[in-house]
Amino acid sequence: MTRLRWGMVGGGPGAFIGAVHRRATGLTEQYELVAGAFSGDAERSRAFGQTLGIAADRSYGSWEAMLEGELALPEHLRIQGVSIVTPNHMHYPVARAFAQASIPVVCDKPLVHTSEQAADLLRIVAGTGSLFAVTYNYTGYPMVRQARDLVRGGVLGEVRKVQVLYNQGWLSTRLEGQGNPQADWRTDPRRSGIAGAMGDIGSHAENLIATVTGLTLEAVCADLTTFVPGRALDDDASLLLRFQGGARGLLAVSQIACGLENDLSLQVFGTRGSLRWQQETPNHLDVFPLEGPQQRWTRGNSALSPSAQAASHVPSGHPEGFTEAFANLYRGVAETLLAQQEGRTPDPQIAQFPTLEDGARGVHFIEKTVESASSTQKWTHARWEGN
Amino acid sequence: MTRLRWGMVGGGPGAFIGAVHRRATGLTEQYELVAGAFSGDAERSRAFGQTLGIAADRSYGSWEAMLEGELALPEHLRIQGVSIVTPNHMHYPVARAFAQASIPVVCDKPLVHTSEQAADLLRIVAGTGSLFAVTYNYTGYPMVRQARDLVRGGVLGEVRKVQVLYNQGWLSTRLEGQGNPQADWRTDPRRSGIAGAMGDIGSHAENLIATVTGLTLEAVCADLTTFVPGRALDDDASLLLRFQGGARGLLAVSQIACGLENDLSLQVFGTRGSLRWQQETPNHLDVFPLEGPQQRWTRGNSALSPSAQAASHVPSGHPEGFTEAFANLYRGVAETLLAQQEGRTPDPQIAQFPTLEDGARGVHFIEKTVESASSTQKWTHARWEGN
Amino acid sequence: MTRLRWGMVGGGPGAFIGAVHRRATGLTEQYELVAGAFSGDAERSRAFGQTLGIAADRSYGSWEAMLEGELALPEHLRIQGVSIVTPNHMHYPVARAFAQASIPVVCDKPLVHTSEQAADLLRIVAGTGSLFAVTYNYTGYPMVRQARDLVRGGVLGEVRKVQVLYNQGWLSTRLEGQGNPQADWRTDPRRSGIAGAMGDIGSHAENLIATVTGLTLEAVCADLTTFVPGRALDDDASLLLRFQGGARGLLAVSQIACGLENDLSLQVFGTRGSLRWQQETPNHLDVFPLEGPQQRWTRGNSALSPSAQAASHVPSGHPEGFTEAFANLYRGVAETLLAQQEGRTPDPQIAQFPTLEDGARGVHFIEKTVESASSTQKWTHARWEGN
Amino acid sequence: MTRLRWGMVGGGPGAFIGAVHRRATGLTEQYELVAGAFSGDAERSRAFGQTLGIAADRSYGSWEAMLEGELALPEHLRIQGVSIVTPNHMHYPVARAFAQASIPVVCDKPLVHTSEQAADLLRIVAGTGSLFAVTYNYTGYPMVRQARDLVRGGVLGEVRKVQVLYNQGWLSTRLEGQGNPQADWRTDPRRSGIAGAMGDIGSHAENLIATVTGLTLEAVCADLTTFVPGRALDDDASLLLRFQGGARGLLAVSQIACGLENDLSLQVFGTRGSLRWQQETPNHLDVFPLEGPQQRWTRGNSALSPSAQAASHVPSGHPEGFTEAFANLYRGVAETLLAQQEGRTPDPQIAQFPTLEDGARGVHFIEKTVESASSTQKWTHARWEGN
Repeated sequence: MTRLRWGMVGGGPGAFIGAVHRRATGLTEQYELVAGAFSGDAERSRAFGQTLGIAADRSYGSWEAMLEGELALPEHLRIQGVSIVTPNHMHYPVARAFAQASIPVVCDKPLVHTSEQAADLLRIVAGTGSLFAVTYNYTGYPMVRQARDLVRGGVLGEVRKVQVLYNQGWLSTRLEGQGNPQADWRTDPRRSGIAGAMGDIGSHAENLIATVTGLTLEAVCADLTTFVPGRALDDDASLLLRFQGGARGLLAVSQIACGLENDLSLQVFGTRGSLRWQQETPNHLDVFPLEGPQQRWTRGNSALSPSAQAASHVPSGHPEGFTEAFANLYRGVAETLLAQQEGRTPDPQIAQFPTLEDGARGVHFIEKTVESASSTQKWTHARWEGN
Repeated sequence: MTRLRWGMVGGGPGAFIGAVHRRATGLTEQYELVAGAFSGDAERSRAFGQTLGIAADRSYGSWEAMLEGELALPEHLRIQGVSIVTPNHMHYPVARAFAQASIPVVCDKPLVHTSEQAADLLRIVAGTGSLFAVTYNYTGYPMVRQARDLVRGGVLGEVRKVQVLYNQGWLSTRLEGQGNPQADWRTDPRRSGIAGAMGDIGSHAENLIATVTGLTLEAVCADLTTFVPGRALDDDASLLLRFQGGARGLLAVSQIACGLENDLSLQVFGTRGSLRWQQETPNHLDVFPLEGPQQRWTRGNSALSPSAQAASHVPSGHPEGFTEAFANLYRGVAETLLAQQEGRTPDPQIAQFPTLEDGARGVHFIEKTVESASSTQKWTHARWEGN
Repeated sequence: MTRLRWGMVGGGPGAFIGAVHRRATGLTEQYELVAGAFSGDAERSRAFGQTLGIAADRSYGSWEAMLEGELALPEHLRIQGVSIVTPNHMHYPVARAFAQASIPVVCDKPLVHTSEQAADLLRIVAGTGSLFAVTYNYTGYPMVRQARDLVRGGVLGEVRKVQVLYNQGWLSTRLEGQGNPQADWRTDPRRSGIAGAMGDIGSHAENLIATVTGLTLEAVCADLTTFVPGRALDDDASLLLRFQGGARGLLAVSQIACGLENDLSLQVFGTRGSLRWQQETPNHLDVFPLEGPQQRWTRGNSALSPSAQAASHVPSGHPEGFTEAFANLYRGVAETLLAQQEGRTPDPQIAQFPTLEDGARGVHFIEKTVESASSTQKWTHARWEGN
Repeated sequence: MTRLRWGMVGGGPGAFIGAVHRRATGLTEQYELVAGAFSGDAERSRAFGQTLGIAADRSYGSWEAMLEGELALPEHLRIQGVSIVTPNHMHYPVARAFAQASIPVVCDKPLVHTSEQAADLLRIVAGTGSLFAVTYNYTGYPMVRQARDLVRGGVLGEVRKVQVLYNQGWLSTRLEGQGNPQADWRTDPRRSGIAGAMGDIGSHAENLIATVTGLTLEAVCADLTTFVPGRALDDDASLLLRFQGGARGLLAVSQIACGLENDLSLQVFGTRGSLRWQQETPNHLDVFPLEGPQQRWTRGNSALSPSAQAASHVPSGHPEGFTEAFANLYRGVAETLLAQQEGRTPDPQIAQFPTLEDGARGVHFIEKTVESASSTQKWTHARWEGN
């Protein structure tokens, strides 16, 4: 096994998510970062690349230069994939260009700004067949995989109701325009897209529901609010959901939940049992059967599903966290790419990651939520018909 | 101090809430149960009354007989108040009759079936001036009082969002018609009213929001569902709320949350802090300030508000539960009645209980929720204009 | 069913535990308090008795007067039992006198000051055959009964280790001599006995171990400390325990655990599983099997043992607390006495309470702990040989 | 900034702790693994090294070969430090040789088998002045650093009592001799040393107490037990502790706590407040002041101490786990070595790691515990007098 030569667009000094992506690949021991366009300033990009051990001639001043430079290299030196960790508005042009060049892409979420852009990417990737992953990182947690495997395996019976709440407090005050780059771009429609909290964390909530339950969303009823005066995008949202087959849902996100941190929780109520998972204590999953004692499944337990076990890397009771969930997506990507290289079938318990379809459906969901928010009708049709 | 002579309508053998009311009065040491109409069968009522130490001639076979019998007694022997713990459909006629006779009433929730009935009671009580309490028992918890005092005292700043979730699983299967009287009457529109889960526990959720925040509800958007085949009323509901002044809310109740017990939780997000209270661990209240560490306030702590302290009866760390919260409502009633008798001002920290207005507003809320559920419009005006 | 006519010695105004006993009997609906010696001042006793609805001539100025007065009454009016809720030093003379008069006794813990006194009581009660209960109230919690039934039923296999920690912080500063009567007598050797924290809460810890596991203690190794300057008795203790058959134990109590409330926890490790119970969240019991998910058993669940179910009075998820556990002991006493009266076999799932033997063994345990604390030898033999 | 060229002794296929060390260095982005003696079989070592991207000529078949090979390289290629992740018995010879060669060492715990060996290492390192870290990894958790900074900063007042419990269940059955290499060497006195559970996890417990409180241990009273038949070393231990100045302690470890995972908890009771930290939920720290609400400090909060903040790498609410705590020790080592290289003062908030002195004191503690366990005297003097 050799390591994958990898590149990164975005993620320069001070960026939050770029560093997470890098540490996540560091955890896998399967990637070697060899190229990057960390900054629009070539000198700054080079200096930053140097701190990461990247050769000066492979730290580029733009993603265009990087794409050109890498394609000019012989194949055995060229990057074997790229992570796109820029603000949202850059996802589309960068992803488009690398995908067209058949370079595997790992793109942060939400995928792009519009369904048209998403459809374009779907077309391109359908043509090239190259890998495209979207880092809905919460699905990388072992206990989320266990939740999915329990639900899809029918252990809870038929799903009746799903509830995802995602409350953060970091935007409770007007942080934007105060020197916080995270707050700046996430509340700026040009960079963030048509939604604020909904785009940033609502997209995670939608993906969590879809991943765990496999339900098809039919309609949404949304109330979006901007609480902080002067803010250009929603900082709070509450949604009622209806799914194909009659299941109901509740999805609420907030970034003005003062003092709360990253309080993402999932509940699924089925005909034979329920489950609850909370991101801030991610190493366990509570299951409530119709009768008898409640169950607490813990990461690392030998009774977990194969994919939950495959996503666990230290023994139970030794907590794994956010970055390790992220790493599991990268492990899924690496398993897929390495199997390809090695001409073998990838291990299906490892080769798991959110796909371009997940990303496109997420974009559609945000659009429908915003549409519903401005409608006086209760229900807005929200089924994603695919590409 | 002498004990209040008290009566009870309903609450015979096998009844859940009647026994709770009795044990709650037992905890207060302020009541003596001296009369009751425990059953429509006079003999059965008498036999049951005997187990409670009630004289045979004061265990009646109907509430009408009880009212007549008690009014025939000299005032110093007659009951000084009555608890109505029947299924919902009996609340109105019984409450009406006792209230008209100027006998103080403690009535279980939801108050009555219709706003017209509620308005009628309001008119009667406005005339007689006699006490009327509605046992929204969750407001009797010391830490709910603390939450209310923090919010209303401005400690959290301006309230932006309120979230109440109330999930139970006991009606996950078709329990009605199987010999469970609780399930039977609660799913029967004639006895329960126009709503099932919404009436039974949604009314608690509404009252909790109103009590803690004091916000005026403007509009609701409701999705009511009946999941269990053959059931006549809703067993699940999700609501979006809008309040006067711009606050938003989320209210969801379910009785098909398989395996969950009595999972009522409250979150309030303000401009300066948030709070969270969970009924299943009622002795603490978590407060999340804008900055610095989270706080866990615990029952019995000397830093609590006066009314939270007055509602606490054993030292901190010695859990008080559901029945003790119930007892606090009865203590509030007793303090009010005894102060009246003794010609003194009641202690305002003790003389607290949900009123007839709370009950009437709750009935209106249920009506508006059901109206919204069948509307294609997103928002249904839901402000209660009072009597 | 009629109610038991009951008396109380101690428990006057301001007393903590007397009020708990009364509210506990109020919860059972099986007792009527008809007599009391609440204070050494006859007038004060009478005034206090009046607030409880007790006839003036049955509120006595001393326990001697009460015993004499009650014995002078015809049997159908006389008390059918007495609760002794005085400071510790009064337990012995009062219990002795009432037991000798064949009046059933419910005595607070720790039973008495010395093993000689305990042996004397055992002899007397062996002679009269009258009921004698000691209120180790934590054994009244339904989930403690479930723990006992699991352990004794062999579900955890053979017990290897037991760990009971009981940490309180209320005596972190020199509260005694500052007008706090609870602190005053509990730190006064004449009233409290030879141990402070060990007597007050260490006795609960010992009883919890014995009740749940049934293990026979062989030897103790104790370190007792007085941290607060000027205090006359221990306010902290740590013990190693050895049991017959090879099990090991750890028992630690503290009343200087600053900021902690009533943090009593129990862990039992067996060959096939472990369990954990925490008094501050008493409605659940965590069980850890050798393999598979952890289990959370909750009060009210239909899969609990019969005695755990019998000790539960509201549905699961509606928390029961400290006073309700207390009430369960009184229910056990009432079931025993009423069955006697009615000439029937008491229901063994209900007729459960700590006995005089529990009390005597507890006194012996405290003596051995104090002996060990002043010994340079590691192990002090501590097996209780019974009466 | 360049990355440190690093080597590893031990940690071949199937090893638990070696992989943790590698992933931890991967998280830091400060290390490049360039050499290793992963196995005593040269071919196996080479094959394993290859999966890690290590050149074939730097994957050695023995640590001696590795030391010789690396020293033969020019300084700018040679490893700049080594991690020793072998079973315990190999720590001493390997550490000794590399330290003598002035190569910085990161050694797993417990340091060595005997105090004589520890003293020898202390002498050598005193001579060379090269860095020597011991991976008591739990001290790398941000909230442990916060606990330490609170205690040492006097926020809790004077420490009265410390309690560390460390319960695992993985050795509840006779796992050794069944093909589990972890179980095999940890229960084998030749490889593990004179203690089993005490050496493996008791050493962590001692270090946690010393790190957080800074107290000097005076005496121990230990009860060591081997519960699993046929096992050669203790699998359970309970200790009473006495510290200089009068503080008391309780330390218990078990590897037969059936079903428990890695349940390490710390409590410190001071004159002005207490704290509690639990390893399985490592991102928060509960503080209990003498009065007012409890506090929950969370990782990433801007009110934490500088060193707690420096050890945190994603925002609050995004859990960091076991491997990230490990990485913080490596960050401390890297900061120290890089500052040395760059001729600057290391940042004291980052340059933190357990030292050789910590390791030596830990060895002494294990020896004294074993000595106490076989003594009939209650107290065994256990103060470590240093080198």
